[in-house]
Amino acid sequence: MLELNIILDGIKGADEESKVKAKNKLDNLAKPLGSLGYLEEIAIKLSGITGKIHNPMKKKQIIVMCSDNGVVEEGVSCCPQKITAIQTINMIRGITGVGVLARHAGAELKVVDIGINDDIDYPGLIKRKIRKGTWNISKGPAMTREEAIRSIEIGIEMIEEAVKEGIQVVGTGEMGIGNTSTSSAIIMAFTGMDADLVVGKGAGLTEEAYENKKRVIKKALEINKPDRNDPIDVLAKVGGFDIGGMAGCFIGAAYHRLPILIDGLISGAAALLAYRLNPLVRDYMFATHCSAEPGYKILMEELKLRPMLNLDMRLGEGSGCAISFNILEAADEIITKMATFDEASIFNDFLIDIRQG
Amino acid sequence: MLELNIILDGIKGADEESKVKAKNKLDNLAKPLGSLGYLEEIAIKLSGITGKIHNPMKKKQIIVMCSDNGVVEEGVSCCPQKITAIQTINMIRGITGVGVLARHAGAELKVVDIGINDDIDYPGLIKRKIRKGTWNISKGPAMTREEAIRSIEIGIEMIEEAVKEGIQVVGTGEMGIGNTSTSSAIIMAFTGMDADLVVGKGAGLTEEAYENKKRVIKKALEINKPDRNDPIDVLAKVGGFDIGGMAGCFIGAAYHRLPILIDGLISGAAALLAYRLNPLVRDYMFATHCSAEPGYKILMEELKLRPMLNLDMRLGEGSGCAISFNILEAADEIITKMATFDEASIFNDFLIDIRQG
Repeated sequence: MLELNIILDGIKGADEESKVKAKNKLDNLAKPLGSLGYLEEIAIKLSGITGKIHNPMKKKQIIVMCSDNGVVEEGVSCCPQKITAIQTINMIRGITGVGVLARHAGAELKVVDIGINDDIDYPGLIKRKIRKGTWNISKGPAMTREEAIRSIEIGIEMIEEAVKEGIQVVGTGEMGIGNTSTSSAIIMAFTGMDADLVVGKGAGLTEEAYENKKRVIKKALEINKPDRNDPIDVLAKVGGFDIGGMAGCFIGAAYHRLPILIDGLISGAAALLAYRLNPLVRDYMFATHCSAEPGYKILMEELKLRPMLNLDMRLGEGSGCAISFNILEAADEIITKMATFDEASIFNDFLIDIRQG
Repeated sequence: MLELNIILDGIKGADEESKVKAKNKLDNLAKPLGSLGYLEEIAIKLSGITGKIHNPMKKKQIIVMCSDNGVVEEGVSCCPQKITAIQTINMIRGITGVGVLARHAGAELKVVDIGINDDIDYPGLIKRKIRKGTWNISKGPAMTREEAIRSIEIGIEMIEEAVKEGIQVVGTGEMGIGNTSTSSAIIMAFTGMDADLVVGKGAGLTEEAYENKKRVIKKALEINKPDRNDPIDVLAKVGGFDIGGMAGCFIGAAYHRLPILIDGLISGAAALLAYRLNPLVRDYMFATHCSAEPGYKILMEELKLRPMLNLDMRLGEGSGCAISFNILEAADEIITKMATFDEASIFNDFLIDIRQG
């Protein structure tokens, strides 16, 4: 694999010429101008990514980065840490939220152990363990700078494999108890916003545990003082292996001109990290669902993206990506199969011809 | 068919016992409580409709009511009236927005001529023409009271046929130049709200034409004085055959305990009309996408429903329903196929067993 810097420098923006062609085609379809709204924007964005007007998405994949976070020893989550390992295996078994929804969407699941705090093995599990969980960010950095870079490279590597497999669209997901805390810390580090605005109750904290979670994250930022102008430093100081891995997916997807979906808060924090490393990656990203976590809206403002779905989901795992593939496919169906005004005979007064079929 | 009054009186609310069972099942799935948000609410609502926990939706149908509106002679639309007939046929040909999206969703399209201002014929077109378009509502009522009831009965009849065909979920759509004007008039009649808040630019009016549209709708309400406590009067005075037909679909679906989807503004106005005839119909309705038309948000407040998709669409035809079937199916997949905590071994410390598959 190429070095991270070379890949970051090799990312190009959207193909503007292709976007113009897509827009022209959409404007010639038999419907009021722009009346398919965001569906049209999706079709145009896809054209900018691939350079093609028509973008079938038969081969879909969700890459799920699974890892543990040392900060859970501060009581920031209501779930015990071993859930990470258990649910990682259940994902491969296809019985978690994303397992069920990916199958429904006809998408392949690629489940990566990038740092689970357990010696797990299971047929199909992709083993890229950096270490058995990060260190506790409220006491010091989550990981070394080298480990941070390694986590990003693992994401890029997963995308390289997806490209070789002919995958046409990728979703991002994660499993890692404690990762709404690391995601919130990353958002706070980049935006300077207060914990009260960013931090949510994750999987379901009590009021007391929620106050503790905010205190712990604030402490992590005070102790580590991440440099917001150095995204790798932010990841190393207050992030997680899962977030680094997903950031690598976003970077790899942009480099290889592959459409990639943001899931919820954690995947979005990874997207922001990638965006801070190279803003051009945004041209390849689609936001899927509006997470119920408060930090999500801040992420959308930072990334200047908007979600398609309004389902109040807060499961993570990549579940929002799984539901959204269908909308991207619908956008491609529109630009590919709808009649133009000529074909619809609307401006030609050919009603009688049409009647005769 | 039974008389409208008998059908309205025969509508029962949701099966609350079944909803409790569905909620209990969802609360036992291996995920944080309620973390699948609106997806869980959909699964619960479906259970309340059918009385079953599992609701596969293999047989889907969109009923599209097509008719013309006399008010177009006032210049309320930027499209000529003959577009109604042309696009009705193009729908059957599968090349309009809803034609393409319904095929993508695996849904059957049922296209009904309930009052197109043209003698059209085409294989597959369902002929239930009441009259060649309504009268101009800015000069008097759109239709007689008998015609209003007849339009609703046609919708009920379409649902009866769908039930016989084994359809498991129905979407509503329409084609009718000028029907954002009649829909706005209905919303204003029921809510007493001002034209500035309700009326939108439809398919794409200029600022001047938009001012005219508002004036025309206001005049229609002043001249006709529809009685908001008599929904049939509202439909007859300022509605359209398409809206009456869709209102009949909502009523028929509630009577036959079939889930039914609201599309955009026009379909939503029909839903409000049905709701005013019997509020229990709401238990059977799902809002799909947040239309870009301003009146849509008012409809959602009146109906106390919320849309799933946030795509700024304003095409109509039933296009939002076509995209949303997949979300209802996803909700059913979740409640049917996700592991319970026991199956996921999460509370039983069976990690080693799970590892061994």
